[in-house]
Amino acid sequence: MTTTPSHGAEQSVSRHVEDCIRACMACAHICNICGNDMLGMAHQAAHDLTARCIRLCRDCGDICLLAAQWMGRSSVFSIRICALCAELCELCAGVCEQHAPHHALCGDCAKECRRCAEICHKMVVESVPAASGQTS
Amino acid sequence: MTTTPSHGAEQSVSRHVEDCIRACMACAHICNICGNDMLGMAHQAAHDLTARCIRLCRDCGDICLLAAQWMGRSSVFSIRICALCAELCELCAGVCEQHAPHHALCGDCAKECRRCAEICHKMVVESVPAASGQTS
Amino acid sequence: MTTTPSHGAEQSVSRHVEDCIRACMACAHICNICGNDMLGMAHQAAHDLTARCIRLCRDCGDICLLAAQWMGRSSVFSIRICALCAELCELCAGVCEQHAPHHALCGDCAKECRRCAEICHKMVVESVPAASGQTS
Amino acid sequence: MTTTPSHGAEQSVSRHVEDCIRACMACAHICNICGNDMLGMAHQAAHDLTARCIRLCRDCGDICLLAAQWMGRSSVFSIRICALCAELCELCAGVCEQHAPHHALCGDCAKECRRCAEICHKMVVESVPAASGQTS
Repeated sequence: MTTTPSHGAEQSVSRHVEDCIRACMACAHICNICGNDMLGMAHQAAHDLTARCIRLCRDCGDICLLAAQWMGRSSVFSIRICALCAELCELCAGVCEQHAPHHALCGDCAKECRRCAEICHKMVVESVPAASGQTS
Repeated sequence: MTTTPSHGAEQSVSRHVEDCIRACMACAHICNICGNDMLGMAHQAAHDLTARCIRLCRDCGDICLLAAQWMGRSSVFSIRICALCAELCELCAGVCEQHAPHHALCGDCAKECRRCAEICHKMVVESVPAASGQTS
Repeated sequence: MTTTPSHGAEQSVSRHVEDCIRACMACAHICNICGNDMLGMAHQAAHDLTARCIRLCRDCGDICLLAAQWMGRSSVFSIRICALCAELCELCAGVCEQHAPHHALCGDCAKECRRCAEICHKMVVESVPAASGQTS
Repeated sequence: MTTTPSHGAEQSVSRHVEDCIRACMACAHICNICGNDMLGMAHQAAHDLTARCIRLCRDCGDICLLAAQWMGRSSVFSIRICALCAELCELCAGVCEQHAPHHALCGDCAKECRRCAEICHKMVVESVPAASGQTS
């Protein structure tokens, strides 16, 4: 994907952040498709689970998209939204996994959510200044 | 980019649409970065052009993102938003090209906008039923 | 609602546009609530209609919110998005009306959609230059 | 503003939440206008402050709009996003206040941000279960 323009050395967004943006966009994309796809299910069986899954996919897609945008703009709250995004991705992944036996696409969606959660989480952890360090 | 999950045969979005979604997401991404980057410019010289360019990058990013989402959900208005998106991408590309001598990233942004405009435009054209004209 | 700050004479958005922004925001708000509320329905009966209604409420909420934002920024494409918004609001209103016997909130949502469609449509019509009148 | 339809007893969103949604929407609205308005400033003087203020207004508008939507859908993460929203509103208010001598609208924007921060903060605090207190 040509998401990453090669705009010289003065690159405003680092490789590292760029990867996180991509993960967020990919996750938003599959959540969007997955949530919409579930609307077409007859779901007598797991109605409550389906409704919950649709809602989480939507919220997860929202936060992933916003996180991607804020990171792209080096927002002062980039890390904060990444942290929230990681949590919501985790939650969504868990419910999608539960729902996967009823809706195959949820299996793929769960994987993408886990991956995004992991990358966002890494962003958050690595942003913490080496703090202490009175390693003596 | 892993935007495209390989979710079996029952793929809810066609390859064709998927390409357009990617183009829109890539365009939204660079517009977001480009528009933000311009805010840091001192721009004595081309102040009005810069302001215009920032505004267009923002609007263009908005519509690209929405078009990508609607296509992903096979919205009844997918083609309508693609048409609007193509127009706005064209406009943004033109202004970014003008602004490129003052802001290098605008050159890359213009290219991505042109590419997105073209792909969106193709989506629109191909969606028109062969209508043809066996009117005789 | 305090959406309208009284920021002196240099008001960047006219009264007229402000009303349209409010209508769009109110419509986005009820579409958001209505679409989500339907997810909780067991809907054996009108499953297809419900799914269609949920999708339209979501798309309608999206476009209303974007139209409101673009009008607030006096975007060059304000009128274009208002036109698309009016059409989608009309469509959503029609489907919500059909669905109202199954979901009471759809009745209120339909009314808000019709109202927003009308105000957006008026914006579009009034933006057309008096087109001269050498009708002779 | 007619944001609040009177949809009978089965109101899916409480009065309390509705007020917070309104505050978020009003804040998103003025941030959108304010941030765009600043783009037209020549701002030789306070260039860095202006750029910072534009960025914060944009981020603040984003989070307010998302918070409003999530609250409307009774998202499981409503309170979490309200907490983030309150913080960003506070930050934006502070910078807008600093910038107000250069840009009058920033004064109104700051007030709306403070108000929204306060209401969001209250939502968060009141959501915490009475935490009992059988501390003895």
